[in-house]
Amino acid sequence: MNVSKERLNNFSAGPAVLPLSVLEAVRENLFNYQGTGIGIMEMSHRSAPFEEIIQTAEKDLRELLGMDDSYAVLFTTGGATNQNSMVPMNLLGKGQTADYLVTGYWAERAMKEATKFGTIHVAGTSKDREYSYIPTEIKLSQAPAYVHFTSNNTIYGTQFSAEPEVGRNVLVCDASSDLLCRWIEIEKYGLVYAGAQKNLGTAGVTIVMMKRDLLSRTPANLPVLMDYNTYVKDGSMFNTPPTFSIYVSALVFKWIKQEGGLKVIEERNRKKAAILYQAIDSSEFFRGTAEKSSRSLMNITFRLPSEELEKRFIKEAESAGFSGLKGHRNVGGMRASIYNAFPAEGVTELTQFMKDFERRAG
Amino acid sequence: MNVSKERLNNFSAGPAVLPLSVLEAVRENLFNYQGTGIGIMEMSHRSAPFEEIIQTAEKDLRELLGMDDSYAVLFTTGGATNQNSMVPMNLLGKGQTADYLVTGYWAERAMKEATKFGTIHVAGTSKDREYSYIPTEIKLSQAPAYVHFTSNNTIYGTQFSAEPEVGRNVLVCDASSDLLCRWIEIEKYGLVYAGAQKNLGTAGVTIVMMKRDLLSRTPANLPVLMDYNTYVKDGSMFNTPPTFSIYVSALVFKWIKQEGGLKVIEERNRKKAAILYQAIDSSEFFRGTAEKSSRSLMNITFRLPSEELEKRFIKEAESAGFSGLKGHRNVGGMRASIYNAFPAEGVTELTQFMKDFERRAG
Repeated sequence: MNVSKERLNNFSAGPAVLPLSVLEAVRENLFNYQGTGIGIMEMSHRSAPFEEIIQTAEKDLRELLGMDDSYAVLFTTGGATNQNSMVPMNLLGKGQTADYLVTGYWAERAMKEATKFGTIHVAGTSKDREYSYIPTEIKLSQAPAYVHFTSNNTIYGTQFSAEPEVGRNVLVCDASSDLLCRWIEIEKYGLVYAGAQKNLGTAGVTIVMMKRDLLSRTPANLPVLMDYNTYVKDGSMFNTPPTFSIYVSALVFKWIKQEGGLKVIEERNRKKAAILYQAIDSSEFFRGTAEKSSRSLMNITFRLPSEELEKRFIKEAESAGFSGLKGHRNVGGMRASIYNAFPAEGVTELTQFMKDFERRAG
Repeated sequence: MNVSKERLNNFSAGPAVLPLSVLEAVRENLFNYQGTGIGIMEMSHRSAPFEEIIQTAEKDLRELLGMDDSYAVLFTTGGATNQNSMVPMNLLGKGQTADYLVTGYWAERAMKEATKFGTIHVAGTSKDREYSYIPTEIKLSQAPAYVHFTSNNTIYGTQFSAEPEVGRNVLVCDASSDLLCRWIEIEKYGLVYAGAQKNLGTAGVTIVMMKRDLLSRTPANLPVLMDYNTYVKDGSMFNTPPTFSIYVSALVFKWIKQEGGLKVIEERNRKKAAILYQAIDSSEFFRGTAEKSSRSLMNITFRLPSEELEKRFIKEAESAGFSGLKGHRNVGGMRASIYNAFPAEGVTELTQFMKDFERRAG
């Protein structure tokens, strides 16, 4: 069955398109996982096959990022939103200050959540120009408990091209929309978190990687699942973890390895994004919204000359099999989310559609 | 394809067996949900098809339980374990006492977690006889903020045959292992919660049903996802919910409706359990561990004359296609979990195997 022919070009910002080989593996194992006689969703988390799944997921993630055992890998729930609470609850000591770089909607939401738990210092922001750029000027507080940034801003289409410079301070990153889109030096990070539904699998599991030495900061008597130590002590199995979502992430990690690892994926993502930015930049009709030096590899935001044309563009694109191009309701315009699993051909097809549309409507 | 033939009799305590029709629907919609051109896992939670899924799930759940709008339905994450924190964080006011019925391992864990957030009164327990029965004597504190009980005890194989009598006090229930196994009068409950991986779907989503008037009890500045109001305000979509797990639960609710609703399911569960208890009671070889009046419809625990025989039983059962019969590591022995989706034929097959084993080994 050639399923890809029936499938749209899915530009959803998340939950997002998955590799076909991942969907195929899920289908194969739905009724009977690897010949065990039990379906993948119906298997005890304490069973040997699931133990192997979660351990392989961790091993492959470590391998992809070259991450040693000074980091713990946690499979949590609640999405990045819950991490916005857990980070300050665990890492922000009494009387301390945490620094936040506010570069978009999600970064702002992380910062606001943190104010519930201690003193927050905004060390940099790009709110002055509608989050259209990544600020280069960063002013840290004197001794921040950590410095938090959001590596990629799905709504505004910006991305840090490199980690902010924070010296020996602990760097914390919400990488929900770009983790594993490129090679990163994990040693620069104290803690990284990411919901799975963009680049890492399906909604329902949130990956946290953290320096083990940060675990001692957690105060006593946090709600049990809000304490990072709970996950580390029991291999993320203090209670039933989201087994199926972890399985899908395990498949995605395996897929990235099979494709050649993060450097190959990064190269591919750079090419995909370049094709689309090139189409935007070579036209007077389309206009990118992010500053060029701050452009995202994952979420490409652009406008048309009028909102009327934008509505028509989205409608006609939808009819032509390009789904999910409508920008976030907070900003309008268009957004093409082209995560790891989004195929290069789909990007080229979109640029052709854009040219056609410009000829017809421009 | 006759998949059922390749599948074992899966007695897993959870994640547990799902109805075949649910697995078939998942398989059909994995690459292309209902002809939308987008797979079920790859679909934005803000898309019209997913909005319909979550709304239908709620509607069907309300219909199954005859639950009116004075109750809110929440789709949360973190399992019952996270609810063990959320209940006292939201409902236990300063200076108040919450009452707990401690009838098993999970009930005890709920009670212990609650001590972090206020004063706890143990209103009843069966710890004196290894949680082998449901206590009938309950001594409530003077004005409890709520009374918490665990309706079914997976490890010890006991179940409340009716709700504890709490007068006009707010009744809170962890129904993770028996929700929708029988008809309940929802009006008796202030709040019910249940992880989905036993009777309601796949791991990753936790259903909460609560009287709306309890929402005003929540104190300010809780971590955002630990506040019930967050879910109610945004239809469980303040952030990306576990879309796929919600979809599977929606399919399970639909399946129960198609089977004829909770009274039919209850009748079927009573028959299934009776077959197995009958096999135990009619033999001198097998011995049930729960007191007869406290027996669970869902988890049937029994012992053999020696641990050696138990090991042999589990091993031979496994070879004969009966999986997951080993009791919880805390108690040993055998446990047959026969949730809604476990077929009656599998129960009969097990009783035949038991008879054969007794003849060979007894």
